[in-house]
Amino acid sequence: MRTLGIDLGGTNIKVAVVELADPPRVLLEEQDETHAELGPDAVLERMAALGLRAIQTAGPVDAAGVGAPGPLDMEAGKAIFMANLPGWENRPIAAPLAERLGVRVALINDVRAYTLAEHRLGAGRGCANLVCFALGTGVGGGIVVGGKLLLNLGGTAGEVGHMAIEPDGPPCPCGSRGCLEQYASGPAIARFAGAAHADDVVAAARAGDAGALAALERAGTNLGIGIANVVLAVGPERVVVGGGVAEAGELLLAPARAELVRRVRVMPVERVSVVRAALGPFAGAVGAALWAGESDRS
Amino acid sequence: MRTLGIDLGGTNIKVAVVELADPPRVLLEEQDETHAELGPDAVLERMAALGLRAIQTAGPVDAAGVGAPGPLDMEAGKAIFMANLPGWENRPIAAPLAERLGVRVALINDVRAYTLAEHRLGAGRGCANLVCFALGTGVGGGIVVGGKLLLNLGGTAGEVGHMAIEPDGPPCPCGSRGCLEQYASGPAIARFAGAAHADDVVAAARAGDAGALAALERAGTNLGIGIANVVLAVGPERVVVGGGVAEAGELLLAPARAELVRRVRVMPVERVSVVRAALGPFAGAVGAALWAGESDRS
Repeated sequence: MRTLGIDLGGTNIKVAVVELADPPRVLLEEQDETHAELGPDAVLERMAALGLRAIQTAGPVDAAGVGAPGPLDMEAGKAIFMANLPGWENRPIAAPLAERLGVRVALINDVRAYTLAEHRLGAGRGCANLVCFALGTGVGGGIVVGGKLLLNLGGTAGEVGHMAIEPDGPPCPCGSRGCLEQYASGPAIARFAGAAHADDVVAAARAGDAGALAALERAGTNLGIGIANVVLAVGPERVVVGGGVAEAGELLLAPARAELVRRVRVMPVERVSVVRAALGPFAGAVGAALWAGESDRS
Repeated sequence: MRTLGIDLGGTNIKVAVVELADPPRVLLEEQDETHAELGPDAVLERMAALGLRAIQTAGPVDAAGVGAPGPLDMEAGKAIFMANLPGWENRPIAAPLAERLGVRVALINDVRAYTLAEHRLGAGRGCANLVCFALGTGVGGGIVVGGKLLLNLGGTAGEVGHMAIEPDGPPCPCGSRGCLEQYASGPAIARFAGAAHADDVVAAARAGDAGALAALERAGTNLGIGIANVVLAVGPERVVVGGGVAEAGELLLAPARAELVRRVRVMPVERVSVVRAALGPFAGAVGAALWAGESDRS
C-alpha cells in the first residue's frame, strides 16, 4: 500500500509519499509555501496541487492523510479552528481534498501525525509506550500506548503543551494560564533571554553566553516538569522531544532529564529515556501518510 | 472462575471473593486489622488466615490477587517499600501467600486494583478510557486506556498524585515538591482548614463553616488542576474520584470541575465527566480479585 501525506503548516505545506512496508519507506518529500493569507479555498487548491505533483512523480497512491494544526473534528474531517491560519473555522478539509486527489483522505492533528512518524520510523521505534513533545511556536504532543497512537476525545489527547506548570503563570493563547507552552516554546525561550528568536538564543548559548545558557536551562527545567507530569500518568519508556526548539539538543534535554529524575520518585524513572526526535522537517507529512494507512484499520 | 482479592492497608486487611461472570459478582467481603507493627511475617500470616477463612465461607478459588501500597515489583511479586508499613523493603508477597493459599497469586498496586474495580463494576463501567484519583492520606491513581488497565513501568503508571501542582510547593514525602498529594489529600485539607482531620472539615463545611468550605474549595480547585493535566494527556471520557476524602462530594468535585473547564481549552472537555467513585471500602479487595483473573490473560 502506498499513501500520500500532506502536512499543513502556517508557512509551508509539506508532502510525503510512503510505501507502507515493514518498515515503511519514504519515497518522496516535497514542499511549497502555504500562503495562508489567501484563505482556505486557495490553500486547499495548493495542497491538492502539491499532492497531485507528488503522485505524478512517485506513482499512484491508495489513500492520503492530512495533518493540520489546531482542534479538529477528525471524524467529520473538518477544522474546528486553526491558531495560525485565519478563516478555517468549521472548514471541511478531508472531503474537498478527497475529491481533488481521487482517494480516501483521513484527517489528523499535525503533532499526532508527527508522533506516529517518530514512533514507526524515528526515535520511538520499537517502543510500546511513547510520549512526544514538539517544541516550536507552540508546544504540541502525542502519546502512543501499547503501540497505538492515543486519539481519545476526537484525537485531542496528547495536548501536553497545555498542562499547567505554574497555575498562576502567564496567560496562554489557549485561554488557560501557566501552560508548558509558556515555558518551553520558542517564544518563551526568546522571552527568557530577552532575544528576538529562540534560534539566536541557541546560537548564543553555543558560543558560551551565560544569559542564553540560563534561558535554555530554565526552559529545559520546565520541560522536565511537564515530562514528569506525563511520565507519572502514562509511564512511557521513551520521551521524544522534537520541533525547531529541540535543535538546542542537550542544552535543553540535560536540564529536562535532571528535573524528571528530581520530580519522579515513585517510579523506576531510570527506565525512561528522554531523546531528541530523529526525523527531519517532513516527519509530520510522513506521519500523515502513515495515518492514511492506519486509520483504515483502527 | 472464582478469585480471592486481598487488600493490604496500613490499618486493615480487606478480602473479597468474586465470581468472574459478566458482570462479575462479589460473593463475600471481610476485613481484619493489619497490625502492621508486628512486621511483615506476622502480617503475611494474617493475610493468609483471612484469605483462607474467606475461601472456607465462599468456596474454593482458582487464583488470588493482592493489592498493596507503595512501589512494587509486580513481576517478581515483591514490595520495593511501603510508606505506611515498616519493614517491607524488598519483601516477597506473592510467593509466600501462594504457598499458604494453594493458588497462583498476582500482585498489584492497591490503587490500580481500586481503579480496575471502579472500571469493571463501579462508576467507570462502560468507559473505554478512565482516570481514577483516590484521595486519602495520600493521593493515588490509576488509568484505563482502551478498556485495559495501564501498567507501564512495572505497574507504576497512574501515579497522578505526584504530578506537580506548584513546582516550588511544599515538600512531599515522595521526595519531590508541590505534588497534588500536598493539595488534595486528607492531611492537606486539614492543614488548609487548621483542623485535625479532613472528616472534621467536611462536617464543618456541611454545617456552613466558611473556613471549612474555603479549604475544600481550595483542595477541589487544585484537584481540578491535576485532573486537567491528566485529561490533556490521556483524554479520558470519565474521571472517577474516590477514597475517604471523596466523601466531601460536590463540595470538592464542583470546584474541581470548574477548574478543569477553565484549564482545558483545546479539547472537547464537555465530554469528560467527573464523578464520585461508586464502590465502597472493599473496592481495592474486589479489584485485586479481578486482577487475579485478568493478569492471567494479559
